[in-house]
Amino acid sequence: MNWYQKEINLEARRRGFHVITSEVINQIPEIKKIKKGILHILIKHTSASLTINENVSPDVRSDMEKHFNKMVPENIAYYEHNSEGPDDMPAHIKASVLGSSLTIPISNGDLNLGTWQGIYLCEHRNNGGSRKLVATIYGEE
Amino acid sequence: MNWYQKEINLEARRRGFHVITSEVINQIPEIKKIKKGILHILIKHTSASLTINENVSPDVRSDMEKHFNKMVPENIAYYEHNSEGPDDMPAHIKASVLGSSLTIPISNGDLNLGTWQGIYLCEHRNNGGSRKLVATIYGEE
Amino acid sequence: MNWYQKEINLEARRRGFHVITSEVINQIPEIKKIKKGILHILIKHTSASLTINENVSPDVRSDMEKHFNKMVPENIAYYEHNSEGPDDMPAHIKASVLGSSLTIPISNGDLNLGTWQGIYLCEHRNNGGSRKLVATIYGEE
Repeated sequence: MNWYQKEINLEARRRGFHVITSEVINQIPEIKKIKKGILHILIKHTSASLTINENVSPDVRSDMEKHFNKMVPENIAYYEHNSEGPDDMPAHIKASVLGSSLTIPISNGDLNLGTWQGIYLCEHRNNGGSRKLVATIYGEE
Repeated sequence: MNWYQKEINLEARRRGFHVITSEVINQIPEIKKIKKGILHILIKHTSASLTINENVSPDVRSDMEKHFNKMVPENIAYYEHNSEGPDDMPAHIKASVLGSSLTIPISNGDLNLGTWQGIYLCEHRNNGGSRKLVATIYGEE
Repeated sequence: MNWYQKEINLEARRRGFHVITSEVINQIPEIKKIKKGILHILIKHTSASLTINENVSPDVRSDMEKHFNKMVPENIAYYEHNSEGPDDMPAHIKASVLGSSLTIPISNGDLNLGTWQGIYLCEHRNNGGSRKLVATIYGEE
């Protein structure tokens, strides 16, 4: 049993939903050593989030952005937390609806996801900049 | 410390929320060997999800289905991803709101859930068919 | 590799979102022994939940309470599960939107969260009382 842990920096991306599977796994080749295990990733921010969803169609990602903006709109009169602009408070709410971390099984050196599943970075700020993840990998070699 | 990992097939179920605790644990008797550990389950699909909720009242499950259909309606004009029908894009959004995986503590050979907690399969498609999970169990024997 | 597992009781809190990071980690000093690992916490209830969000501004917490009450209102005509009052069914729905458990990396004896991240108890009932968590800590010492 072995443990690997490292911080990963993601490229800055525009507001919206983005498939980042390759960018993540290219930075943690230690996955290849694990026969049965788990990859855990946490995003160290409260205005961006991680989820698993459809990894091919760009319109799934753009429809998700449109619908999250409807479920959690900007400029609602009752928001008091507006110091960083109208995208500030909605970003915090979306981050909790979607979640800050993912746990994904590793089988025989690969992520064991469904064929159509990918890791999404959900960028909720207009100018979120580069985002930091902590990746923890553990399992049987 | 030992690791067990296997794929589980769930029976096809109609659209809605379903308690599947027994169907899951009956397929992974290895839980009984673990004194302190974790059960991780991932659903390998992007149009169905897993959550933990009330395990007795059927009206909790039907009210959840009604309310998720209101939060994430079909046939919104801005959806572009409609190739598989009106239940397609809402299914992807619901899957990310609810989540693709669960981690549950194991204590003395049993899931350590609250008395009223059960594992739900959230089937978001009208004809989702059988669903596949990856179960990973790890801990101290 | 070592495993620690214990139940934690949280103080009763009023309905809303509350930062509980210190209350949690003070009850599990075993975190200090772990060099690389994971803290898993599960809330053993279906009407309260756990999330990670902004740990300083009280208005983030109060805006979250206001917006979750809008996304999941009380007294919708189609709710059938009303036996425990108007806050009953919305509490179940919010619990599944936010989630029942968290997994947080441990690095060199500390939770490895972002500077502005804290653990929230999301209390969805008007009189939820004390809440029970199961904490599981595992990793390399």
